[in-house]
Amino acid sequence: MVEQTVQESNSSATTTFRGVLDAGTIKRTVDVAYAVFDECHLYVDPDGLRLAAIDAATVVRADVTLERAAFESFEGAPDHLGIDLERFRDVVSIADRDQFVALEVNAESRTLSIRIDELEYTLALLDPETIRSPQEGSSDAFDLAGSVVASAETFDRSVRAAEMVSTHLEFELDAADEVFAVRADGDTDDVSLTLSASDLVDLEPADTSSLFSVDYLASINRAMPGGVDVGLGLGTEKPLSIRYEFADGGGDVEYLVAPRISAT
Amino acid sequence: MVEQTVQESNSSATTTFRGVLDAGTIKRTVDVAYAVFDECHLYVDPDGLRLAAIDAATVVRADVTLERAAFESFEGAPDHLGIDLERFRDVVSIADRDQFVALEVNAESRTLSIRIDELEYTLALLDPETIRSPQEGSSDAFDLAGSVVASAETFDRSVRAAEMVSTHLEFELDAADEVFAVRADGDTDDVSLTLSASDLVDLEPADTSSLFSVDYLASINRAMPGGVDVGLGLGTEKPLSIRYEFADGGGDVEYLVAPRISAT
Amino acid sequence: MVEQTVQESNSSATTTFRGVLDAGTIKRTVDVAYAVFDECHLYVDPDGLRLAAIDAATVVRADVTLERAAFESFEGAPDHLGIDLERFRDVVSIADRDQFVALEVNAESRTLSIRIDELEYTLALLDPETIRSPQEGSSDAFDLAGSVVASAETFDRSVRAAEMVSTHLEFELDAADEVFAVRADGDTDDVSLTLSASDLVDLEPADTSSLFSVDYLASINRAMPGGVDVGLGLGTEKPLSIRYEFADGGGDVEYLVAPRISAT
Repeated sequence: MVEQTVQESNSSATTTFRGVLDAGTIKRTVDVAYAVFDECHLYVDPDGLRLAAIDAATVVRADVTLERAAFESFEGAPDHLGIDLERFRDVVSIADRDQFVALEVNAESRTLSIRIDELEYTLALLDPETIRSPQEGSSDAFDLAGSVVASAETFDRSVRAAEMVSTHLEFELDAADEVFAVRADGDTDDVSLTLSASDLVDLEPADTSSLFSVDYLASINRAMPGGVDVGLGLGTEKPLSIRYEFADGGGDVEYLVAPRISAT
Repeated sequence: MVEQTVQESNSSATTTFRGVLDAGTIKRTVDVAYAVFDECHLYVDPDGLRLAAIDAATVVRADVTLERAAFESFEGAPDHLGIDLERFRDVVSIADRDQFVALEVNAESRTLSIRIDELEYTLALLDPETIRSPQEGSSDAFDLAGSVVASAETFDRSVRAAEMVSTHLEFELDAADEVFAVRADGDTDDVSLTLSASDLVDLEPADTSSLFSVDYLASINRAMPGGVDVGLGLGTEKPLSIRYEFADGGGDVEYLVAPRISAT
Repeated sequence: MVEQTVQESNSSATTTFRGVLDAGTIKRTVDVAYAVFDECHLYVDPDGLRLAAIDAATVVRADVTLERAAFESFEGAPDHLGIDLERFRDVVSIADRDQFVALEVNAESRTLSIRIDELEYTLALLDPETIRSPQEGSSDAFDLAGSVVASAETFDRSVRAAEMVSTHLEFELDAADEVFAVRADGDTDDVSLTLSASDLVDLEPADTSSLFSVDYLASINRAMPGGVDVGLGLGTEKPLSIRYEFADGGGDVEYLVAPRISAT
């Protein structure tokens, strides 16, 4: 599978990726993927890294890219690996935010070396064949009718409000009223949050409505950094696209969450 | 039951209570009642709100009042409702301390609407008939012989000290020595705390002694705001009255805790 | 056993120890012993206190001394007691860091009185015969070939790194390379930390290697104050000595941890 390897003086012939970046960036990248998955695909190419996975019930998929610009130094040759996100997260968690983390993939031994100053970890990589693969393509494929850009704080508030009363929430766009509404109906209690353009960063109205499981959104919410703008792509009984940038634009994540069939 | 309703232009005929207050005040009010109860009676009248409950074993009752002065705006007509304190607490916990919370009781649908900016919750109220009722009257009925006013810090210290060695503690007033003593005798270890007038805000000596369960006092202690003065009314084998003000005097709570029969 | 008692005007004839010290010092002393034991021997003599214990599997022993200089006032006559560290810790935890704690042992009632301002605890002491005894002597008896002095931060880093991949870690000194290496080999992942003299406070090189259980080291690490210099005495398949001072040099602890038989 690995035909091309990183060429450099002190590089072994079997190194397909070598990069150095600050601890804050790699921690965030791993957290964003670990929000919904324990293990994922890791794609290397000369432009950067990509982490991707889909859950067993095919309800949620995530696509995380980290461009070479997010690295202090980066060399990559096309490779496809599997990674245990929990182990990876444990290791990078030991670094201080402003320390540098050096990563290196050895394609032959299928290991990822993680160096943090004098510390060196060797993590066994997983066979990507054993990890469920999302289909290629993004939310563009779904032709989502409307969209909203909200602050991370507004997204957080919506999800936490819904969590209190129900296991599901409804995202609704109303073209006539020009509002984005979040609604959750519990067995005894209800909650609604009605946001107009002035409460949002951006609103492209349409008439859409879809119901989602709160659990996945709560996990995605917990991994979201404060202060970012979150793009939500919405349709009627279509997947929800949740997209934001991190690491000063060097990182990007898109989650696609499948709708639940509405009870009404 | 509801003969009178709040009259106002934009008020529905079935609204018996409408009030706006800061999140810190309503959070504190709910916490103070939730310290000992999961659900309680909610009485509305033109002067304010009252929360009251007694536990199944009739060991502890609480009476929490929140005067109309504690609200930014307040309109109330006599009503009697039941409320799930845990749900109410979850909802108000989402507000920031300095946000305003708007409350409204709909007597017909038996719901409490809670509005925090764009967020609107609708909580189902409980039938007050299903909630155990304390008898009317306060500690005045018990003719407690002595009293002490202590800082919340001193109360906290006494309860935490006793908790370490035993499930019971004794509050004792000694008229001759002019001291207030807290004692707990465990199976192997003992603790005592002897406080004279200079360690207290106020001391009205008498000769009294009663034994109480530490558990209830610990719960009451955890909900107590720092910095308040706590009035303790004491008798011999009489209930303990624990009373303090909160919300700049707009709120007031009295707990009555039944004594345990002393082992000696 | 108690032939001599502390002689002083307001001292009962059965007092063998009376001392006053700041809460921070006694809390630290107890934490350092409680790191590996629930109960321990308490030796009193005119020069200070000593806490000592060994675990049932004889893997780890601790020796904690607190010199009379660490006390504001100290009077001690030779005595040997047993103490429940968990109860002792609970009690001293209630004091603020800068409060004074007055301790007094009553040899007749076998109790330890702990006074923190108006609070007085009476803790039942244990019969030292019921507590496993370490043999006398320290690491000097083992003739450890090499030693390292590291910062608490470096020790913390080593242990936490090893914890992530394995239940065992290897400490190795290499005389030729003049390095101190920490290694842990897990089922799938490995970690190593290679430190030269410049990464350490002091390094006395030798050729040694021993394997230790990570659990004990993690407990010792958690109780270690930040900022101290930790002396490690090392041999090949010899016990590890971990030694540091606390309370401005008035306190001293030495742990001896038995090596595990290496799998290799």
